[in-house]
Amino acid sequence: MEINGVEIKDTYAEAFGIKVTRLLVTAATKKLALVAATEATGYGTSVIGCPAEAGVDCYVPPSETPDGRPGYVIMICNGSKKKLDHELLERIGMCILTAPTTAVFNVLDDADEELKTGFKLKFFGDGYEDETEIDGRKMHVIPIMSGDFLVESTFGYKEGVAGGNFFIIADSKMNGLVAAEVAVDAIASVPGVITPFPGGMVASGSKVGCNSYDFLDASTNEKMCISLKEQGIESDIREDAHGVFEIVIDGVDADAVSAAMKAGIEAACTVPGVLEIDAGNFGGNLGAHKINLQDLF
Amino acid sequence: MEINGVEIKDTYAEAFGIKVTRLLVTAATKKLALVAATEATGYGTSVIGCPAEAGVDCYVPPSETPDGRPGYVIMICNGSKKKLDHELLERIGMCILTAPTTAVFNVLDDADEELKTGFKLKFFGDGYEDETEIDGRKMHVIPIMSGDFLVESTFGYKEGVAGGNFFIIADSKMNGLVAAEVAVDAIASVPGVITPFPGGMVASGSKVGCNSYDFLDASTNEKMCISLKEQGIESDIREDAHGVFEIVIDGVDADAVSAAMKAGIEAACTVPGVLEIDAGNFGGNLGAHKINLQDLF
Amino acid sequence: MEINGVEIKDTYAEAFGIKVTRLLVTAATKKLALVAATEATGYGTSVIGCPAEAGVDCYVPPSETPDGRPGYVIMICNGSKKKLDHELLERIGMCILTAPTTAVFNVLDDADEELKTGFKLKFFGDGYEDETEIDGRKMHVIPIMSGDFLVESTFGYKEGVAGGNFFIIADSKMNGLVAAEVAVDAIASVPGVITPFPGGMVASGSKVGCNSYDFLDASTNEKMCISLKEQGIESDIREDAHGVFEIVIDGVDADAVSAAMKAGIEAACTVPGVLEIDAGNFGGNLGAHKINLQDLF
Amino acid sequence: MEINGVEIKDTYAEAFGIKVTRLLVTAATKKLALVAATEATGYGTSVIGCPAEAGVDCYVPPSETPDGRPGYVIMICNGSKKKLDHELLERIGMCILTAPTTAVFNVLDDADEELKTGFKLKFFGDGYEDETEIDGRKMHVIPIMSGDFLVESTFGYKEGVAGGNFFIIADSKMNGLVAAEVAVDAIASVPGVITPFPGGMVASGSKVGCNSYDFLDASTNEKMCISLKEQGIESDIREDAHGVFEIVIDGVDADAVSAAMKAGIEAACTVPGVLEIDAGNFGGNLGAHKINLQDLF
Repeated sequence: MEINGVEIKDTYAEAFGIKVTRLLVTAATKKLALVAATEATGYGTSVIGCPAEAGVDCYVPPSETPDGRPGYVIMICNGSKKKLDHELLERIGMCILTAPTTAVFNVLDDADEELKTGFKLKFFGDGYEDETEIDGRKMHVIPIMSGDFLVESTFGYKEGVAGGNFFIIADSKMNGLVAAEVAVDAIASVPGVITPFPGGMVASGSKVGCNSYDFLDASTNEKMCISLKEQGIESDIREDAHGVFEIVIDGVDADAVSAAMKAGIEAACTVPGVLEIDAGNFGGNLGAHKINLQDLF
Repeated sequence: MEINGVEIKDTYAEAFGIKVTRLLVTAATKKLALVAATEATGYGTSVIGCPAEAGVDCYVPPSETPDGRPGYVIMICNGSKKKLDHELLERIGMCILTAPTTAVFNVLDDADEELKTGFKLKFFGDGYEDETEIDGRKMHVIPIMSGDFLVESTFGYKEGVAGGNFFIIADSKMNGLVAAEVAVDAIASVPGVITPFPGGMVASGSKVGCNSYDFLDASTNEKMCISLKEQGIESDIREDAHGVFEIVIDGVDADAVSAAMKAGIEAACTVPGVLEIDAGNFGGNLGAHKINLQDLF
Repeated sequence: MEINGVEIKDTYAEAFGIKVTRLLVTAATKKLALVAATEATGYGTSVIGCPAEAGVDCYVPPSETPDGRPGYVIMICNGSKKKLDHELLERIGMCILTAPTTAVFNVLDDADEELKTGFKLKFFGDGYEDETEIDGRKMHVIPIMSGDFLVESTFGYKEGVAGGNFFIIADSKMNGLVAAEVAVDAIASVPGVITPFPGGMVASGSKVGCNSYDFLDASTNEKMCISLKEQGIESDIREDAHGVFEIVIDGVDADAVSAAMKAGIEAACTVPGVLEIDAGNFGGNLGAHKINLQDLF
Repeated sequence: MEINGVEIKDTYAEAFGIKVTRLLVTAATKKLALVAATEATGYGTSVIGCPAEAGVDCYVPPSETPDGRPGYVIMICNGSKKKLDHELLERIGMCILTAPTTAVFNVLDDADEELKTGFKLKFFGDGYEDETEIDGRKMHVIPIMSGDFLVESTFGYKEGVAGGNFFIIADSKMNGLVAAEVAVDAIASVPGVITPFPGGMVASGSKVGCNSYDFLDASTNEKMCISLKEQGIESDIREDAHGVFEIVIDGVDADAVSAAMKAGIEAACTVPGVLEIDAGNFGGNLGAHKINLQDLF
């Protein structure tokens, strides 16, 4: 199968279950909302080493937010309910409550369960906290130095999808890099997903386990390393390729992740020099989801 | 004392010791370097609730970096050597190694001790890792999907300063907010410091302890809350003020933090409506550093 | 009439007819499209002194553009057909053709007439130019150093609306400025309009004619100058106001301009310290359009 | 000659004389200064079709500006004194005076002559204008809606250099594009120069005259067009190259342009896949300046 002359391999992305929250951060200005959203979702590429997987989903204009102010939807994810509870509390408490003029709303549909994040944060008010209602939501009003911080009382979470992915194989390094940038920008228009890695792309695909050092659970995927291939080491990268980048996607469900993969792949295939779209899997026995590339189109 | 008609109060900022690292992240492009630097320093406002205090110090043009590529200096800080070691490893390994085309160099002068972060990261190479020298530095070369990731073998840390601060008291909320933005931008030109909170400013000053709930170690500083003052609750905010913002600064030493406070205060005082510059302290018994506001000028 | 406690004055914006074009600029990446769009719409605040009124309307994701690449819609406007023809030719030829990887499509609905801009630009190809069709559009393919520049053969224009406007009257300078920023960001989500002034806002409202110097056709509107009011000079600004900013909007028709005014005013009214929304007019005899503020809601 | 394995051709850039102004635009915030600077320098790639060549030179932190506020230096250039006078007046009057909180200072050293731009603009004040002195400079104070606009009375110009240039020849399109981006970012750290084309780079090199159409003075340089080469048409591009981009530089003098070319070339040569650096000239008889590539190093 080809799109715009680019081969779409007959393979699948193997993705995993993860607990997902989805919050709307509003502020007095669009810029202030983005500043808070960015701080709250940093250090959040993969739960392999980060305390959460987190990222910015989309911008919401003032006319569509509960408080009429500009906002950004963010997602914070973790496989463990306990860790997710902690991350939500600290990322909101330390990175959004501390940012000027912000408010936080729960915008996850169809939650499995709820976390009492807002309820816990209200005690910071030391007795001066209050309650109000916005758009039918119970909000805690916490007085802070610069004004009042408003936070919804509870935040839902649900079983979502982590690790949706595809590889961009290109004839040069920067043809591949630009295609990855284009894919990430295209995915940004799909609601309900994030690309949690830096700039949305992963420069370092890994394999399970490690052959040389038994103290490591994961290590570089040497058969997909472009510089090893160029040194003549046995490789799974096609002969004419000199650039390989991976896009990783987390989403509220498999449909959202599939829509993101489709949008990203179609956009990547507009960049000259992209040769092939591949995907990462582990034989199909590890992850709960298999998303076949060719079935997306 | 007055600057441009703004009262500089006769008080001091009480600051604390913290272990500080200072890294240079380079990449193929300025934008890619910033993307990695931003991801690696997110979720890093205060060690009260974040796993580190972290931020971007400054941009370094290609002509001044060891590898001739554009870069950003970042700082990652923690009071505990063990936690700092962990944070450095994970923030570099998960947020910079995973970003396309990056390299990381140690740029802290006068280190007290060293962390073997690069040495530890090299095992990700699963036996394919190599070594090289750049600018007299020992670098590990780790093959990853998109090319090679280069990281210096060791990173120094030293006892620096956390919690340098000043308050901007203004006659309106946004006069204060804009002054805070201006101060943060001015501080960005001072080397050796970061403003770790979102957008560099703190909207929520806190006090030690909590009067209403004994399970909290810190809570809102009700005497500096603008909305409580406007409700008639006893306040330390002057009568004519309607906007209060705090700037918090971490730095490699007290001189750097003092220079940042000076630059930030002078810049804030150019904004119309700023009434007074104050500072936060805890009676002088908690922190290792007292930085007197009036002595800065 | 009040919105969120802000008085909406019972007055109208007086707007004018202007010839409007609407183009889609696509490129390999979102960033490259924005760079070209920004260059092509600079030096375009008002035809009083600029060769055109121009600005960025909105972003269009890859899935919705004719060539599947990211793009920005821009508008270029002038009262004279001849001048508009010249501006389109030079702004596309000098600022978009010269930018890497771009293409330009006509996206104006219901054009009154057409300009042969693409047809004229093709001769730059010196005989090597070609033709193709994208999405049913006739495109000229002009070989340039970095690849091929594609431009639609003709661009429509129609009689649109210039000078839709409102004033934000606030209790402090920066409360007003932030409200103006918020209004501009909100207007950005309304299709078919631009806010051509720097950052979308006008710091310098003018009046027709000049009392002191007969060689000037326009001069500062002294009755709306905040610093003159504070010096005690007779003013139309209310006593408690210390910040005044104007938003000016051009659009494809009166409905688009009205929708933009509505979105901008509602967003501005979420900012604390905004006192009043006013509008600029010249007695109603100069402009073809009167847009009443209170009728918007 | 080679840099980092990239061939530096034994050729020269042929550059031209142009009249150059250099202005500092300050504002309440860094962002507002950049907004005004960007608007005032748009539609300014080449005097072949634009009314001026213009761009942003560099950022100046508050501690180094005459009014203690953040600022950006911009350059506006034209070969004709009369046109330069007009452009300065309109670009300042329409794009900076209209932007909130701005002031404009003359920062050209060693001017040949002066333009009375500030003096002319002051009449917009309709008799309410005033004068003041900042840092020994005579400033006009013009009351506008949002406050006072301050502009230096006169602006110097001098005979500078236009059209300093180099070509980046790369093995793929995006390797070349990324190298061009890197070069432009590196040049941004060199004072006294601008890269006036969109994003600093030129996608469309031209030749003098036109073979097929006698009504054109300039046309595409078919021997440097990558897509024509790939179609088998006779080309000056080397066989293994698939990406060609030009950087064009204007500066206050030949030394500044040379420093910019050096910084840009060195940075471009760090990007993998760059094969060769070339330069554009017209046989040496048209331009006043010849800058030899190899002499830069």
